[in-house]
Amino acid sequence: MKFLRIGPAGAERPVLADGAGGYVDLGPVTADIDGAFLASEGPARAAAALAGGRLPRIDVAGLRVGAPIARPGKIVCIGLNYSDHAEETGSPHPEEPVVFMKAPGTVVGPDDTVLIPRGSEKTDYEAELGVVIGAPARYLDSPREAAAVIAGYALSNDVSERAWQHERGGTWDKGKSGETFNPLGPWLVTPDELGDPQAIGLRTRVNGEPRQDGNTARMLFGVHHLVWYLSQFMVLEPGDLVNTGTPAGVAFGANDFPYLAEGDVVEIEGDRLGRQRQVIGRA
Amino acid sequence: MKFLRIGPAGAERPVLADGAGGYVDLGPVTADIDGAFLASEGPARAAAALAGGRLPRIDVAGLRVGAPIARPGKIVCIGLNYSDHAEETGSPHPEEPVVFMKAPGTVVGPDDTVLIPRGSEKTDYEAELGVVIGAPARYLDSPREAAAVIAGYALSNDVSERAWQHERGGTWDKGKSGETFNPLGPWLVTPDELGDPQAIGLRTRVNGEPRQDGNTARMLFGVHHLVWYLSQFMVLEPGDLVNTGTPAGVAFGANDFPYLAEGDVVEIEGDRLGRQRQVIGRA
Repeated sequence: MKFLRIGPAGAERPVLADGAGGYVDLGPVTADIDGAFLASEGPARAAAALAGGRLPRIDVAGLRVGAPIARPGKIVCIGLNYSDHAEETGSPHPEEPVVFMKAPGTVVGPDDTVLIPRGSEKTDYEAELGVVIGAPARYLDSPREAAAVIAGYALSNDVSERAWQHERGGTWDKGKSGETFNPLGPWLVTPDELGDPQAIGLRTRVNGEPRQDGNTARMLFGVHHLVWYLSQFMVLEPGDLVNTGTPAGVAFGANDFPYLAEGDVVEIEGDRLGRQRQVIGRA
Repeated sequence: MKFLRIGPAGAERPVLADGAGGYVDLGPVTADIDGAFLASEGPARAAAALAGGRLPRIDVAGLRVGAPIARPGKIVCIGLNYSDHAEETGSPHPEEPVVFMKAPGTVVGPDDTVLIPRGSEKTDYEAELGVVIGAPARYLDSPREAAAVIAGYALSNDVSERAWQHERGGTWDKGKSGETFNPLGPWLVTPDELGDPQAIGLRTRVNGEPRQDGNTARMLFGVHHLVWYLSQFMVLEPGDLVNTGTPAGVAFGANDFPYLAEGDVVEIEGDRLGRQRQVIGRA
């Protein structure tokens, strides 16, 4: 299944793709696609309501697509998690996952404007596989238990200010939490519909030019390992988002790609995850 | 004024100290002490309701004290922000604030049990002045504008796992987000009642023995500077918590203080901020 949230920012309504190219209103099942919905077998209830014909069809043409989940309780991110990206940044492969956080208020819709912060000269894109948590994860015994706490996946752009991330005092969070820095969606894709999370192509173009063309097969630590690992350090909660790292091809890498400038158009797509398109503005 | 939240975890009710040693129920004014309350001149409405005799007296004796604010949208923390603490850790004074984040779900009441994470050998305490944001802060022009976005202050224990913070891949967040890692309160103290935020004594004892005895006068970057600074990198929102750093005397410092062990009792107090008491358990 694919879940969406459609409507003006802050007033999105929950929507379900019907699997035949149309959309239905999820309002009869839930007020929002949030942790409470995901933790209470909401997706199964949505499927039953769809199968029972209890969800009214709606036309979403021309309407804004929001992030497919309500604001997360937290966003946990993994750094240097693709072999090709670690190499392009001149970093050794990390021995264990590198963990940082992003302010939850950074989440915007997949096609919303991304704002270069004031004073920024190194704003960068990062196409990522986002993992949405569906059940509490606390000291999971093994990566095999991770699948049971994953509600689904969403395409995520972990926008980053590289000077602030690397040149302003050590920890990375300062360069990761700018306003509009986490376009998410268009869809929350359930695990059965995504298939193998370690075989997902991720592609980025800027102004039509190819920049990233990676695959989650090159992750150093796979999705299930990451969720298990994080659960040893913190409690993951329903509705939380985990950004799992980006493949090679970002401006910060060893290439001639420029950092983002006002007016640039960033397009990101992922296999079975849909497509994002952001016009770059200035705060 | 001093605001509290009283009752079982997850079901706290808002309470106001009446200034004469008693307490009144804030239920007639707000359902919770959260960002919406703080951003809508809630404290002024509470003061008016108290002055008008419209708030029923309540007896809080024997009831659990919760954190004085609802779960924050984010917790932003400052590292190495006291001259004496930077020196005890062998770190140079940072040229600008060191910023990291803590999972919002770490917040517990001031007297709740703190759990040493599984596998942890270096769990540590950090008495801090917590700043609660009351209005959106985005690109403040100067530190002078910070006072207008501060709703109040609360005593905060930024519990930390030092091995995970420093020896597990670089960024600090991994050692800061353990379950129960942010006892907060007992009170949200309004700025007028706190007085000068740069003249607040902070003291910690473990099992009755003195460990920290510092003063916010020794902050390298003061509260108003920090709020201004953070607003250049991210939007601070009503209800957010900023932990402003800890003075010398933590176990991680250059002294013989041991890390926390099961059964230890941590007592933290701050001038005009009240007192916390945590018994240390194990996850």
